Amino acid sequence: MLGSTGSIGTSALKVVARHPDRFKVRALTAFGRRDLLEAQERAFGPAFVGLVSQRANGWASGVNCLVEAATRDDVDIVVNGIVGAAGLECTIAALRAGKRVALANKETLVMAGELVRCAAREGKGELIPVDSEHSAVFQCLAGQPERKFSRIILTASGGPFHSWDAERVRSATVAEALNHPTWRMGRKISVDSATLANKALEVIEAHFLFDAGYEQVSAVVHPQSIIHSFVEFVDGSILAQLGYPNMELPILYALTYPERLADEGLTRFDPVAAGPLTFEPVRHDLFPAYSLGVQAGKAGGTAPAVFNAANEAAVAAFLDGRIPFGRIAEVIGAVLDSQTERRADSLEAVRAADAWARQRAEEILCSS
Amino acid sequence: MLGSTGSIGTSALKVVARHPDRFKVRALTAFGRRDLLEAQERAFGPAFVGLVSQRANGWASGVNCLVEAATRDDVDIVVNGIVGAAGLECTIAALRAGKRVALANKETLVMAGELVRCAAREGKGELIPVDSEHSAVFQCLAGQPERKFSRIILTASGGPFHSWDAERVRSATVAEALNHPTWRMGRKISVDSATLANKALEVIEAHFLFDAGYEQVSAVVHPQSIIHSFVEFVDGSILAQLGYPNMELPILYALTYPERLADEGLTRFDPVAAGPLTFEPVRHDLFPAYSLGVQAGKAGGTAPAVFNAANEAAVAAFLDGRIPFGRIAEVIGAVLDSQTERRADSLEAVRAADAWARQRAEEILCSS
Repeated sequence: MLGSTGSIGTSALKVVARHPDRFKVRALTAFGRRDLLEAQERAFGPAFVGLVSQRANGWASGVNCLVEAATRDDVDIVVNGIVGAAGLECTIAALRAGKRVALANKETLVMAGELVRCAAREGKGELIPVDSEHSAVFQCLAGQPERKFSRIILTASGGPFHSWDAERVRSATVAEALNHPTWRMGRKISVDSATLANKALEVIEAHFLFDAGYEQVSAVVHPQSIIHSFVEFVDGSILAQLGYPNMELPILYALTYPERLADEGLTRFDPVAAGPLTFEPVRHDLFPAYSLGVQAGKAGGTAPAVFNAANEAAVAAFLDGRIPFGRIAEVIGAVLDSQTERRADSLEAVRAADAWARQRAEEILCSS
Repeated sequence: MLGSTGSIGTSALKVVARHPDRFKVRALTAFGRRDLLEAQERAFGPAFVGLVSQRANGWASGVNCLVEAATRDDVDIVVNGIVGAAGLECTIAALRAGKRVALANKETLVMAGELVRCAAREGKGELIPVDSEHSAVFQCLAGQPERKFSRIILTASGGPFHSWDAERVRSATVAEALNHPTWRMGRKISVDSATLANKALEVIEAHFLFDAGYEQVSAVVHPQSIIHSFVEFVDGSILAQLGYPNMELPILYALTYPERLADEGLTRFDPVAAGPLTFEPVRHDLFPAYSLGVQAGKAGGTAPAVFNAANEAAVAAFLDGRIPFGRIAEVIGAVLDSQTERRADSLEAVRAADAWARQRAEEILCSS
């Protein structure tokens, strides 16, 4: 369990705690929340504990502890709930070691989709998405004939601002951006949901996960977050996966696929209580970060890594109160405009693009 | 193609006509529409043509021509689009002969579900549903782990009367009952949709098709007929199949399962254009025929066959102007009240129950 104290990690541990006969936690790692990690160690008794940010309790420390945890012999499944670019090396290492990776860390695929797919192929590792949208697509594709989907339609809640006017969105506060209508998540992904940068990351993620052309992947705003995504097949039939918003289900499915495990802990769906399900087009005028991200995906090479890094830097600056909400997309756009096209054919190339984009974003942030 | 001139038959021939390299029509049968059957014979050049109601053109005639068509050596797939109880023997014969039966004739399963399943098992035949709701369930279950669904939620348009008040429904005219909001279908099934007897038949059909307990099958009113049904799995995940109402897709899927065949003839789905999707509970007060049918299903034995026959007789009387709309369910209820419980362990027992129920219905109709 990588990132065990975060939103995904704590949800995954709830799932595991309900099925003690089925799952055993072998390793826990976290970035800095030592108290919670200590409590998790007491509750689950893992053989390995790693705290990235500091030495404590005789635990492993430093970023290397992620790879160490992810490649242990006694580990079958790696749940990667790390936020941001830090989740890349351990995903690749786990796939090379033949593990199943339950991946909530979409940045991994966005930065280095080809490298990750290559690692899975070479190491016979398995990549199972935990993002609710991609888990939905994965569930719809499971058992269907190979390569017979024609379109993937990712649903987007639209975030807290989808019905606001553009002027008000530009000056939205941190508290407003973090006030997601349907999901309770970490701060970074909540802001990404408010800018719809998150949906662009998901389009790129879908491209790599499902080997889908960008013309096959689109997004639609669905404010209720009940339908988690649609898959259209070549015969015109549509399958969708749905239910109340809850990350525990995609986590459980990633742990049990292709099986399904009975779990009474998850609320039963009632279509009448769920209320009307509505759909609206993505408003590109309101969410320029979405279009920028999809363009970066189509450009390929290191452009998605540059988009991701610029976004991380800009979101951090927004959360620190350095820039207004509307400036996030402008910073991303300026970084992308000044990039040089490069191939993402090695971890070094990806890391270099990532570092360059962060530095460039910082320059832009300081000059403005 | 059994019932080739009906609603299902003509849709199936449209599908086949779009894929001449994939499908060849070997046999056509119809009840009485000789002109259309002649046109279909010219268009598709089948080796066998049968007209049940009369001798013509050197074609086969009489009910035996259905079994003859369904068991021919050069036939792989039997599309059964026959309306009502007449579709039973040929379904069983086709399954015994190891054919795939694409079944739109739900009465077959309602009357003799156990016998049909037994015929499929013994003859290694395959039963694939063509009803849009059951095709949806079948598509959601395809490739998923066996016996891991927990609930089936069939959607019902609610028919033309779902928002009417009870008094007005009781005296609805034939034209009003035939005015289905989302599907263009034959007269009998349109009335069944207006009484929701059709949904009860579908609950029973789902019970037999998917080996589902009655406590696992329910219905929800979904006036837009976009989501064709839901399947809930033991882990709480829901899959749904959806799209614009069009029988050609379930027919195509039944012909190609487990494959999917690219078909540009079917309209592409747009969730934004589809509009809000809404759900309401079934109004048992307004649709007593629904509750009567589900009760008959739970009672088992010949009760579903009695329900089906009483319903056919009452609907015919309504269409003939003999009884008002509200009397349909009363006739069904009176027939069910006077039945004797019997096992549905032979075709003779089922036929006897069917004949008894029609006669009893006629007595009730004449006495009122």
